[in-house]
Amino acid sequence: MSLIGITMGCPVGIGPEIILRHALQRDPAAPFTPIILGDIGVLSRCAAELALNVALSPWLPGTPLPTGALPVVELSHLPPRDLHWGRPTNATATAMAGYIKAGVRLTGEAILDAIATCPISKAALQAAGYPYPGHTEMLAALTGAAEVAMMMAGSRLRVTLVTIHCPLAEVPARLTTEAVLRLIRMTEGSLRRDFALPQPHLAVAGLNPHAGENGLFGSEEGAIIEPAVQQARGEGIAVEGPFPPDTVFFKAAAGGYDAVICMYHDQGLIPFKLLHFSDGVNITLGLPIVRTSVDHGTAYDIAGTGQADASSLTAAVNLAAVISANRKRFHQRP
Amino acid sequence: MSLIGITMGCPVGIGPEIILRHALQRDPAAPFTPIILGDIGVLSRCAAELALNVALSPWLPGTPLPTGALPVVELSHLPPRDLHWGRPTNATATAMAGYIKAGVRLTGEAILDAIATCPISKAALQAAGYPYPGHTEMLAALTGAAEVAMMMAGSRLRVTLVTIHCPLAEVPARLTTEAVLRLIRMTEGSLRRDFALPQPHLAVAGLNPHAGENGLFGSEEGAIIEPAVQQARGEGIAVEGPFPPDTVFFKAAAGGYDAVICMYHDQGLIPFKLLHFSDGVNITLGLPIVRTSVDHGTAYDIAGTGQADASSLTAAVNLAAVISANRKRFHQRP
Repeated sequence: MSLIGITMGCPVGIGPEIILRHALQRDPAAPFTPIILGDIGVLSRCAAELALNVALSPWLPGTPLPTGALPVVELSHLPPRDLHWGRPTNATATAMAGYIKAGVRLTGEAILDAIATCPISKAALQAAGYPYPGHTEMLAALTGAAEVAMMMAGSRLRVTLVTIHCPLAEVPARLTTEAVLRLIRMTEGSLRRDFALPQPHLAVAGLNPHAGENGLFGSEEGAIIEPAVQQARGEGIAVEGPFPPDTVFFKAAAGGYDAVICMYHDQGLIPFKLLHFSDGVNITLGLPIVRTSVDHGTAYDIAGTGQADASSLTAAVNLAAVISANRKRFHQRP
Repeated sequence: MSLIGITMGCPVGIGPEIILRHALQRDPAAPFTPIILGDIGVLSRCAAELALNVALSPWLPGTPLPTGALPVVELSHLPPRDLHWGRPTNATATAMAGYIKAGVRLTGEAILDAIATCPISKAALQAAGYPYPGHTEMLAALTGAAEVAMMMAGSRLRVTLVTIHCPLAEVPARLTTEAVLRLIRMTEGSLRRDFALPQPHLAVAGLNPHAGENGLFGSEEGAIIEPAVQQARGEGIAVEGPFPPDTVFFKAAAGGYDAVICMYHDQGLIPFKLLHFSDGVNITLGLPIVRTSVDHGTAYDIAGTGQADASSLTAAVNLAAVISANRKRFHQRP
């Protein structure tokens, strides 16, 4: 039985609610046990407020698992008077960061097999003194990973991103042949290792409209992207492009490609969320641990109202378990 | 009976084939007659090559329409020896430009009620001495329109674009509050006039990931886009935003908005083509005439092979007829 850690995310976002809903909805026959990394007081109060009947039990790593209750590694004890849905504080931000750190540590020590993370507030994280643009960058720093990348995965489409959380105006200057090539390699490696695809087929999107239309609308395709594609092909990777961005996702979703390498956040996220608004999963490539994440934010506007949807968390936890199992098999292959 | 002109587009692209296929597939009870602006020799040879049995008849504007044959305004007589599928020449480019000019003239003279345009080669157009980045800009110049914009329309999603055919790197500098405001007004006007929606509801996409996430990933939302939205709301337009680009299209496609105002080409075209790959229509807003277009290119790779799909042309012709009728009713309303 593998153990999949779930970090609680921002305590005043929808993380606690989706954790409880996931526990109520999950398939008891699934071959893994979820372990919550969070605050049992926050969870139990959320359960009471929203009438979500989930039994919770504190759990210390290394001790036997509770039966009939959701195990919670207690990493904070936030006092109720300081908690208001949708209003993060330095205390909630510090606690939120602690859940992530514990997840990394326990997965690194192989006590957990993987982690799935609930949404954090990037603004609160930064206000509390963690200088990371997002979850992914924080995980890279905590694990000492040299190169990480974000993949969004769903049943119809997988995308990876060369640049992520930066202003659109900075995207062209941040693109390099090396970065595109690195992402092609990382994406192909993940498809083989994490998704058990023996012969992955990749598409690379251009940067500009119509992929530049022979230089009429930009030159990055020829100058930066094509050399990376050629180099990767020379290494035996089945990759094509750069393709016009406005048609490549349709072709990939129709089954033409196993993943699309995207040049910027919204190039990949717009089509991905159109197809996988509720069930998309974010996977961090390049970490020494298996980490998936919900693909939505803290949703402060609906936190505490009982309207949150646990579909993405369910997909993230299930995929974390699948990837963890696939990686073990991959590394054990003859 | 209204008359809808169809410009043949690039003579060595898929324009001739989709015109013939459209003629074979079209509903004979439709309340309009298509008029081809092109080259009857090219069309008849294409019909013979691909075994598409369509009767063609030359037609001079002002004379009676032929019965039982597709009327063709003869605007070029390209010699067969110079025509090779997928290989445009200066002669084909000049002819192609002539079809567009004739369409504009005949529509301006109210001989035609609207035009639907087949795809052109922008590179060939420019090589032949027409210095326009695309069809839309050429039509603006020919009609003397001060402000034009591109709308892509389908049954699930409509998008309009603040910037269109320019390198992605130039997009941020090209955005202005005035341009966003102008497009909001033009989009709302078109939805009322062309689509007969009495109370259109618009969404505006941000430029940056997460719409800038409070300035973390860019400042254009607050500095440029929000003032335009506020101004438009002050004018009584039901418009909201700027929204995170990666979720607004899902919400619009689910029925939340009648159109999404997009900051750049692929922001709008990626989600649009994902939903409307075969049946999307391009409409030019701001022209004194009604003009729709297929939303695909010349497809030189399959030109002459009989594999072209006329769905987008059919949708474009039908929508041109609907818009033309709606505009007449709009201008006749009490």
